[in-house]
Amino acid sequence: MAKVYSDLSVTADGYATGIGQREDAPFGDLDERWLHAWMFEHEADNRAEVAAILDSGATIMGRNMFGPVRGPWDRDWRGWWGPNPPYHHPVFVLTHHPRDPVEMEGGTVFHFVTDGIERALERAREVAGDRDVSVAGGPRTVNRFLAAGLLDELRLHVTPFVAGAGERVFDGVPPQALERVAVRVAPPVTHIPYRVVR
Amino acid sequence: MAKVYSDLSVTADGYATGIGQREDAPFGDLDERWLHAWMFEHEADNRAEVAAILDSGATIMGRNMFGPVRGPWDRDWRGWWGPNPPYHHPVFVLTHHPRDPVEMEGGTVFHFVTDGIERALERAREVAGDRDVSVAGGPRTVNRFLAAGLLDELRLHVTPFVAGAGERVFDGVPPQALERVAVRVAPPVTHIPYRVVR
Repeated sequence: MAKVYSDLSVTADGYATGIGQREDAPFGDLDERWLHAWMFEHEADNRAEVAAILDSGATIMGRNMFGPVRGPWDRDWRGWWGPNPPYHHPVFVLTHHPRDPVEMEGGTVFHFVTDGIERALERAREVAGDRDVSVAGGPRTVNRFLAAGLLDELRLHVTPFVAGAGERVFDGVPPQALERVAVRVAPPVTHIPYRVVR
Repeated sequence: MAKVYSDLSVTADGYATGIGQREDAPFGDLDERWLHAWMFEHEADNRAEVAAILDSGATIMGRNMFGPVRGPWDRDWRGWWGPNPPYHHPVFVLTHHPRDPVEMEGGTVFHFVTDGIERALERAREVAGDRDVSVAGGPRTVNRFLAAGLLDELRLHVTPFVAGAGERVFDGVPPQALERVAVRVAPPVTHIPYRVVR
């Protein structure tokens, strides 16, 4: 059966984003290179893991990952990714504020889901069919899926930095065993995928 | 030059001990097997890492790692480790309450240091000579050494569990880059040693 997975780049102390997220700093006060240098500056060493991130039939994300707009949709924000986002499939954005779907180039359509994570997952599974569903982030959204027992696989990409502040993976997630699936060491990151044990 | 190192077994969410530490539960409400099964139930797979933990000429530890006594030393507590502790060298216990040294079998002598971590490190270096100094724990003590820039190497042993609460490695440690030295994957733990970059 298709699985629900999540990829998070985290610092050694578990932070997946900094505090103070804003339009000119999607990851807030945390130097984005501390999280993502492995993807962009060491792409050849990490090709398989980068490709796996987007290998789903549908994506779910939190509103803060989609953009800096808070409250009602008072501007025509269309994501951080330009006219042709890298998803190429339906993306379900969790929000409290309704908005009509936004169709982008290349097959990405942003749908705005106001009735909770279970419903978002239902809709994502429907359109994904046999393919997996990705919960793209941010950490708070991933933690909500983990806490609700809705995630099958969490792939951590651990970088060699201490962030000291921000939003942490696993915060609010109840105690539980995980199953380490495989570990791959690459410059400069340690890929540790976990399967969630039911 | 001899280095100052620390080994910490931590859960996937970074906890090295639970809350509610007490005499019958040295790691508090955190199931100790979640931290240490790799050492005790999978010893053959992790022999090198286990041996390295104790390969120092002197050890420093926080008072909570030494025992459950709080405040003045109103009982003759001699550690959790029985009459012949595994250290076989001087152990410097950080405390606010003076106490005469306690000599154990096998070469371990517990010294009680009331004048701070720098002084404890000075004394440990003196007796260790050419050998390394270990900061054994708990996490709060390791974090103090990290924050003060006194640690050369932090070896994390990451276990596949979510603890959800307790004392976390890196809490209170300022943002900084680390250098990943090597990673070894063994059942059921991921050994990730970091060198502290100055």
